[in-house]
Amino acid sequence: MIHMPYLLFLGDAPDQLAAKVAQGIADWRPEAALGQLRLPGCGADLGLPDMSLAEAREAGAKTLVIGVANRGGVISKSWKAVLLEALALGYDLASGLHNLLRDEPDLAAAAKAEGRILHDVRVPPVHYPIANGVRRTGKRCLAVGTDCSLGKMYTALAMDDAMQKRGLKSAFRATGQTGILITGEGVPLDAVVADFMAGAVEWLTPDNDPDHWDHIEGQGSLFHISYSGVTMALIHGGQPDALILAHEPTRTHMRGLPDYQLPSLETLRDTALPLARVANPACAVVGISVNTKALDDDAAAMCLAEIEDRMGLPTIDPVRQGAGRLVDALLAL
Amino acid sequence: MIHMPYLLFLGDAPDQLAAKVAQGIADWRPEAALGQLRLPGCGADLGLPDMSLAEAREAGAKTLVIGVANRGGVISKSWKAVLLEALALGYDLASGLHNLLRDEPDLAAAAKAEGRILHDVRVPPVHYPIANGVRRTGKRCLAVGTDCSLGKMYTALAMDDAMQKRGLKSAFRATGQTGILITGEGVPLDAVVADFMAGAVEWLTPDNDPDHWDHIEGQGSLFHISYSGVTMALIHGGQPDALILAHEPTRTHMRGLPDYQLPSLETLRDTALPLARVANPACAVVGISVNTKALDDDAAAMCLAEIEDRMGLPTIDPVRQGAGRLVDALLAL
Repeated sequence: MIHMPYLLFLGDAPDQLAAKVAQGIADWRPEAALGQLRLPGCGADLGLPDMSLAEAREAGAKTLVIGVANRGGVISKSWKAVLLEALALGYDLASGLHNLLRDEPDLAAAAKAEGRILHDVRVPPVHYPIANGVRRTGKRCLAVGTDCSLGKMYTALAMDDAMQKRGLKSAFRATGQTGILITGEGVPLDAVVADFMAGAVEWLTPDNDPDHWDHIEGQGSLFHISYSGVTMALIHGGQPDALILAHEPTRTHMRGLPDYQLPSLETLRDTALPLARVANPACAVVGISVNTKALDDDAAAMCLAEIEDRMGLPTIDPVRQGAGRLVDALLAL
Repeated sequence: MIHMPYLLFLGDAPDQLAAKVAQGIADWRPEAALGQLRLPGCGADLGLPDMSLAEAREAGAKTLVIGVANRGGVISKSWKAVLLEALALGYDLASGLHNLLRDEPDLAAAAKAEGRILHDVRVPPVHYPIANGVRRTGKRCLAVGTDCSLGKMYTALAMDDAMQKRGLKSAFRATGQTGILITGEGVPLDAVVADFMAGAVEWLTPDNDPDHWDHIEGQGSLFHISYSGVTMALIHGGQPDALILAHEPTRTHMRGLPDYQLPSLETLRDTALPLARVANPACAVVGISVNTKALDDDAAAMCLAEIEDRMGLPTIDPVRQGAGRLVDALLAL
């Protein structure tokens, strides 16, 4: 268990997307996010108070969470001084980076000397089985995207939140570092060995009550060549009853791949649904979640209306409107 | 480098498919396969001389290769006595199992005491990059199957063999333990961490001469829910110019998944090709490789003719006929 509250370390994040781990915690566990710590040149801002390590510690912060992800997941040299000072001040550290805290000799030594804990939430804590494909009881929903990093996790969290508020049976199932930092448990899917990916998703979403919905955190995209295998394992291991299509309408190319265009929502639907029906022949696409953060209110409303009209499915931005209409669509299945 | 020749250990393999690692070595490196060693109850037979450890050692065997794969990749207790005796007799050991030789304390201690080497070919030897999707020079061919374990590796080896015999530029690119044991190098793809799968395939098939063909060893199937993520990473990391469809016509359900039916070749084609064109818009399906081992000569000929007529693509069994017609189809692209 990671001790809260947190001070969120944004490092030298070049832009807001690079700080999505911290943003997720600030949005979904605001009571746990005391403040943010930024280095010179940081291009991200959570709107939280900027605090020094000493200030936040005095205010009660127990864990410094590395809330920034850089390509490859490396612990930057410019971060080291901050992390070592944090350990000296009595913080635990938590990180979802590929480059593990525990693998840095200076951090490991300092943590041991100070009696602090290094939480590497990316390390799979159990040995997952190979997927067996057996149908499980209970219901499951998965968001699949036209690209990475466009709101699949937010969609799942918002749907879970909407169901909880209605008193319905629901769980958010974390598959990435942010989700795990938010909920305290889950599967760090992109760090799982290939043969066990789908089995890990089966393990994460076991038999449940017939009217219980798991909202599985999506990863990657079938159309993002770097991570499509992870998405495929979620679709087959999750055996979802319902798919949500996730989209960001202003993106000009796939994230990190300047030569790759985003697919249309129609292409995403027609690709993902037949693949999902391999594992669950009853699977249906029930709605669309659009990240309209880059649009003003009028443009967002027009965008959502155009997509809803074109696709014939309830279309919402979970951040602007909540996910109530997507939950309605689930319950109507 | 693993020292040859080998004694192939089949253990208590329940059937011939479970010994496919040993079969692959016997078929493609016959000069390296001195004999087979089988335990009571073994249901596999390579047609090689049955030899004791001492007999094969005397005949010159240098490495005992674990040529049997069981579900989950565990080193069975019944194998331990054999492996320890082999080390005592001066053998190195080689294995592609998930359960590593080096992680077994008794084997590790015996190897150290005897000065022998434990080759775990499943362990990725390098830290692979995240796939960047940049187009590479040279040509690549990948077989995708209606199921697992139906001849994708044989197809790639046969195509490489046919090209080599014509003096054309060609390489077999191993992605599994058998392939690595055959060629001495490659990527153990099902043991790679999820985020780096596609990058590992890019690393394995780098820029090459414009008229050079990589024959990438396929893995899993887009329709096999346990391993479909690995297949997806091969399709996107490999950015193939040509796909071969692989099929086994007598299989009644997906391997290991009794509730799952095989897709048709048409469904496989219509699923795999659009996904491949995400990474390589020029990709084409050029031929079909059918494993007719379970059929007699007449039935095999009828089966191949029926599929060729129906699908309009050159259709061969590489074991019965070689892969010359598939190579012709590649060169005609």
